[in-house]
Amino acid sequence: MTAWPKLAEVQAIDLADPLSPCRARFALPKGVTYLDGNSLGALPCATPARVAAAIAGEWGEDLIASWNKHGWIDAPARLGARIAPLIGAAADEVIVADSTSANLFKLITAACLAAPGRSTILTEPGNFPTDLYIAQGVAAMLPDRRVRTVPASEIAGAIDGDTAIVVLTHVHYKTGAKLDMAGLTAAAHAAGALILWDLSHSAGAVEIDLDGCDADLAVGCGYKYLNGGPGAPAFLYVARRWQGQLRSPLTGWMGHGAPFDFGDDYAPADGMKRFLCGTPPILGMAALDAGLDTFDGVAMADVAAKSRSLSELLIAGIEQRCVGAGFTIVTPRDADARGSHVSVAHDYAWEICQALIARGVIGDFRAPDVLRLGLTPLYTSHEDVWRAVEMLAEVMATEAWRDPAYAVRAAVT
Amino acid sequence: MTAWPKLAEVQAIDLADPLSPCRARFALPKGVTYLDGNSLGALPCATPARVAAAIAGEWGEDLIASWNKHGWIDAPARLGARIAPLIGAAADEVIVADSTSANLFKLITAACLAAPGRSTILTEPGNFPTDLYIAQGVAAMLPDRRVRTVPASEIAGAIDGDTAIVVLTHVHYKTGAKLDMAGLTAAAHAAGALILWDLSHSAGAVEIDLDGCDADLAVGCGYKYLNGGPGAPAFLYVARRWQGQLRSPLTGWMGHGAPFDFGDDYAPADGMKRFLCGTPPILGMAALDAGLDTFDGVAMADVAAKSRSLSELLIAGIEQRCVGAGFTIVTPRDADARGSHVSVAHDYAWEICQALIARGVIGDFRAPDVLRLGLTPLYTSHEDVWRAVEMLAEVMATEAWRDPAYAVRAAVT
Repeated sequence: MTAWPKLAEVQAIDLADPLSPCRARFALPKGVTYLDGNSLGALPCATPARVAAAIAGEWGEDLIASWNKHGWIDAPARLGARIAPLIGAAADEVIVADSTSANLFKLITAACLAAPGRSTILTEPGNFPTDLYIAQGVAAMLPDRRVRTVPASEIAGAIDGDTAIVVLTHVHYKTGAKLDMAGLTAAAHAAGALILWDLSHSAGAVEIDLDGCDADLAVGCGYKYLNGGPGAPAFLYVARRWQGQLRSPLTGWMGHGAPFDFGDDYAPADGMKRFLCGTPPILGMAALDAGLDTFDGVAMADVAAKSRSLSELLIAGIEQRCVGAGFTIVTPRDADARGSHVSVAHDYAWEICQALIARGVIGDFRAPDVLRLGLTPLYTSHEDVWRAVEMLAEVMATEAWRDPAYAVRAAVT
Repeated sequence: MTAWPKLAEVQAIDLADPLSPCRARFALPKGVTYLDGNSLGALPCATPARVAAAIAGEWGEDLIASWNKHGWIDAPARLGARIAPLIGAAADEVIVADSTSANLFKLITAACLAAPGRSTILTEPGNFPTDLYIAQGVAAMLPDRRVRTVPASEIAGAIDGDTAIVVLTHVHYKTGAKLDMAGLTAAAHAAGALILWDLSHSAGAVEIDLDGCDADLAVGCGYKYLNGGPGAPAFLYVARRWQGQLRSPLTGWMGHGAPFDFGDDYAPADGMKRFLCGTPPILGMAALDAGLDTFDGVAMADVAAKSRSLSELLIAGIEQRCVGAGFTIVTPRDADARGSHVSVAHDYAWEICQALIARGVIGDFRAPDVLRLGLTPLYTSHEDVWRAVEMLAEVMATEAWRDPAYAVRAAVT
């Protein structure tokens, strides 16, 4: 980008954007520029009525009969099949269940138990905390296992005959860096290891081709770019070739081959249902279903292209409009090497983030010094990015962030 | 009960019932006698507005800020503290998280890992399937563990120095039999074992005194007598003396002592928060909160007394009004030895259940031959029981259940 555009110029880009009609699918609050859909996706317009119908029309009216009559029992597989095309998977390779953390536990444990001669869970330092914590928990629980962390740039060379599973996040939650899924998957396979991809910060925002990359396992989050609502059910992917060989340690009744026979002995279901555990959370499933509706008719290539265009504009704006303000761009400049959020480091990132929030520009802070701005291709416009940059430039030029009120830290960030 | 009462007599009992005003807290469908609250509690009137507010007012308006502003992050502990008085626990001994199955897994695994010299998970055959399946999954995952099943009547004598944990359901899902919590807990402790009580079929319907019984661990369900909605979040209890010593194997970020420091190393939170795993499901939490409101001002002694009164009436009705119909009362006749549902066995229990449902009396079937009728003290009236008995008597007298349409089995029962 040569020169910082005028507002009318970015509005013209939005007019030509094939995804711009999708913005109307969301109930964005007035006066807010929301750049935190990578943490909690915005509310789809259809969600309130969808959940209300599940509550009053299904639960309230049909009560227990709803498990059959309204297909509640099939919701995990039905929603999994809806997520599948967004991540390059077949419909029968994805299922919705539990939390991302619980799904990580299921698949890391299953992979370790399937590779008794291999002791290492390999991941990167600074991975999203729950990925690290769950790996540590599995290693502490099973005998003779360990977690080894190696910087992402050295992971490929560190995979060896002792590696049971490589656990990586596709798009890094803090830096926005996107890893080479195809290359790292091939490196894992060359050493006889499985690889698990955490798609929490990429599903719904960048192109993903799990099957095309020959990936083994993946998990992801329902409440970020999939717009499923706070604490939405998560998903997991197991390549078809592994479904019969891996067994979830969380052998709850919903993963049984015949749960309503009420037999005494566990026998896992065929296919992805063996990775279910407890009773599916129907209200959360209804909201996630409405979240997935926002992708109706959307090509993921258009999503990826818009993500790139938005992030290019944002990086150019910070570079051109905040000269000398002390920002370091953390996110890779190469658009192929990043996801859909842009992170900048600053000694006063917390205060700057608070000053922006006070002015209606919602990003977030990640310790110790990162301001993170998320770009959701379905509803973020180029005009949003332009206005956020202008506000950031003003906050920096006027040193508005020095207001002591912005130094007060909240419990959750 | 000497003679089967007339309708006016049971209506008089309802008029004198201190819990009868609670029925108005539920949106029961017209023309239905709902006797399946032990499987899925009825919809509270307050739930639709409560969930709608969480969606539109909190998520939609305040987006990511809601984690602090609307106390989402504290919902697991806040709801746990609300459940505590219903089960005889202190507020800091209960937390809401995940599913009953996942919580069983956390606590059974934690207990096994805390007792390395003891190899046995002891439970009863015919326990609720997910209790058995999870125990089997833990035993298959950890080295040198096994599940041993012994009939409930022999459990006390079977607990020995090799028993790591005893896993029992307080009220049996199929028979309705209620176990002696104090006695069996003492027997476990005498042998140096821990005991876990599954309260899924008792919490909210019978009196429970976990602390008074010196119980160690418990789990329970949010969607039965707690009226939290389909697939509601579940709860778990850990006696204060064990909280620091047990570690959940599901070491997700929400169980970390400082999750928003985003550090690389897992360190469990103090207290019950260490038993959290992933991001809490806020919509399900909002519905469960409204479900718990239905207990406002209610004394559990009144709940237990009404449960006894309802079940006495139901058993008397089946005995007196269905003479010669072929029913065997499965549930203990001694009211102190049963929970809040009544089960009867019949060779054609499935067909009879379907015939009742077709006539607006909703119970359920449990394989191979049990008709199960649940009595929820907050909304089931004596009139409901009376009408259900009369309908059952009519179905049996007219052999209406022989209609071939009622022989078709549904996927979920």
